[in-house]
Amino acid sequence: MLDIKITKTTAPKEKPKGNLGFGRIFTDHMFVMDYTQGVGWHDPRIVPYQDLTLSPAAMVFHYGQEMFEGLKAYKGDDGANYLFRPDMNAKRTNDTNDRLCIPRVPEEDYVQAVKAIVSVDQDWIPTAPGTSLYIRPFIIATEPFLGVDVSQTFQFIIILSPSGAYYESGLEPVGIWIEDDYVRAVRGGMGFAKTGGNYAASLAAQVKAHDDGYSQVLWLDGVERKYIEEVGAMNIFFKIDGKVVTPMLNGSILPGITRNSVLQLCRDWGLPTEERKISVEELIQAQKEGKLEEVFGTGTAAVISPVGKLRYKDDVMVIGNGEIGPLSQKLYDTVTGIQLGRLEDKFGWRVRVD
Amino acid sequence: MLDIKITKTTAPKEKPKGNLGFGRIFTDHMFVMDYTQGVGWHDPRIVPYQDLTLSPAAMVFHYGQEMFEGLKAYKGDDGANYLFRPDMNAKRTNDTNDRLCIPRVPEEDYVQAVKAIVSVDQDWIPTAPGTSLYIRPFIIATEPFLGVDVSQTFQFIIILSPSGAYYESGLEPVGIWIEDDYVRAVRGGMGFAKTGGNYAASLAAQVKAHDDGYSQVLWLDGVERKYIEEVGAMNIFFKIDGKVVTPMLNGSILPGITRNSVLQLCRDWGLPTEERKISVEELIQAQKEGKLEEVFGTGTAAVISPVGKLRYKDDVMVIGNGEIGPLSQKLYDTVTGIQLGRLEDKFGWRVRVD
Repeated sequence: MLDIKITKTTAPKEKPKGNLGFGRIFTDHMFVMDYTQGVGWHDPRIVPYQDLTLSPAAMVFHYGQEMFEGLKAYKGDDGANYLFRPDMNAKRTNDTNDRLCIPRVPEEDYVQAVKAIVSVDQDWIPTAPGTSLYIRPFIIATEPFLGVDVSQTFQFIIILSPSGAYYESGLEPVGIWIEDDYVRAVRGGMGFAKTGGNYAASLAAQVKAHDDGYSQVLWLDGVERKYIEEVGAMNIFFKIDGKVVTPMLNGSILPGITRNSVLQLCRDWGLPTEERKISVEELIQAQKEGKLEEVFGTGTAAVISPVGKLRYKDDVMVIGNGEIGPLSQKLYDTVTGIQLGRLEDKFGWRVRVD
Repeated sequence: MLDIKITKTTAPKEKPKGNLGFGRIFTDHMFVMDYTQGVGWHDPRIVPYQDLTLSPAAMVFHYGQEMFEGLKAYKGDDGANYLFRPDMNAKRTNDTNDRLCIPRVPEEDYVQAVKAIVSVDQDWIPTAPGTSLYIRPFIIATEPFLGVDVSQTFQFIIILSPSGAYYESGLEPVGIWIEDDYVRAVRGGMGFAKTGGNYAASLAAQVKAHDDGYSQVLWLDGVERKYIEEVGAMNIFFKIDGKVVTPMLNGSILPGITRNSVLQLCRDWGLPTEERKISVEELIQAQKEGKLEEVFGTGTAAVISPVGKLRYKDDVMVIGNGEIGPLSQKLYDTVTGIQLGRLEDKFGWRVRVD
């Protein structure tokens, strides 16, 4: 149990009006906790939102020892504030930390910190349909040392950003570019970890896909370049001949929390699900035979993102006439319904913040 | 040609005495230049060494869009200040920048900036044998935005650190751990780039190797896990049956400047050199046949690092009785001799700073 010291701002900012966008507006406060080798995590505190002051030799600027998470707080239909499965973010943080040699954060402390900062800035949770308060916990290596080594000091910080609806006019199918040149991650690397380097590695392909009119990149495995891995900011699902299929967690893809929730829901509904290797060839074949029924991404930002178009080399596959599939719509309605307190929370995913 | 504005410190620090170590002491000044999308690089300046003040949402903390270089300034035997091939660092910076979607820095501006900051802090170049002024140029993404995208603003910074001799009592052979589990980089990834993520990915294996008494990790290729790539902070060379062999630049290893210099010297000396794939099996076989004559690493920090011991799974290969080989010694003496102005600079590698 953390003893969090709270210092409130004396100059609260004006709350934003109109289109919030994503990730550009920040609330009045932030959570900060320090780590020192030999002491452990210490000085948990909530302070006015402010710039960080760091040595130019701080290791985060040089060797990428950094990690982040993303989750959201929602204003429920009943007026209460809800989080969605924050324990899963805490657990994934420690899986990432282990890979990056960042000290673990006790999971109950992690969830306590998230709840505390959301509680302090709860008036910033937006209420318009589809909006939410995006929560960004992150950890950076702060030791001022140019040797390539594990940092002796870290900061764990949580900032909050009120964010607009991902799709302003409801769900919209997106076009996805299957990348056959650049590689994001490989088994033995750090693909399963939520760390800066994986995203830095993804930018060049993303720019290429955007220039061609595609909204995101779908990565193939780094070894054989034939098996589907994940989209830059989402996991990917296929409905093939009545079955719900998604790539297995193999060490090089991110174990998404929405992915996990979607699998649980599909199983609860009695749909056959498979976590396994899926080759691009299998998708092309299924499409030819009319068995590729739906494709959708899952992630915290968009929750469910229907895919209307998949490009691979010179082939463009149009999925379900480019329209939203019934399973995609049902999953979106169910997950957001649970998040907002509209539907029964039979799995215990919703966490109330007072 | 940059118009660099210089603001000198009013509180110069005391110069360090005794063992300098590496990367923990910094000089009185730093070079800073900003980039803004649509404007380009602007406001080049030399200012007193100081902390950076950045938004907690600055993209470098989240998505690892960052790069660095390393080179050294030496106090020559003639009392002049010398750099070693800074044009190569400028060129490699731009190769890294292209992969990371960081804007290019004109190479002449880059070299001008390095020379300018070294000139201002030239009294910090240490003079004891083996010491040097380590120069760390780096670029970080500074836009405060949580979307995964190319930053619209960057800072290019150069800091300087007087550093001790890498081997305090002369060249010393090191033990190297050939890693067969973790992977650093794969073709299509960003292994050839000098960026944080590659080093973050390397820490877990480095900790494992250190715990076992080995000083560095030798990486294998991420696809077949059988070909030699590079050591964490060095390229690697083998002398096999009279030939000087090093892994070819395949996109997943760093194109080292010392590597390039060593290849040029060996060719100049008439030694047969090969840049090609080298499997672990080939090394084991060569060792069995008594043909693995020398192994050494090359890098800016240690220049030449003789390898006395190579561990692969349960095998430990002792190279040249664990002693320094004659080629390693000759290369070390020649490269450092050119760096310090003791030997003729027939390739034009030395750059004087006034």
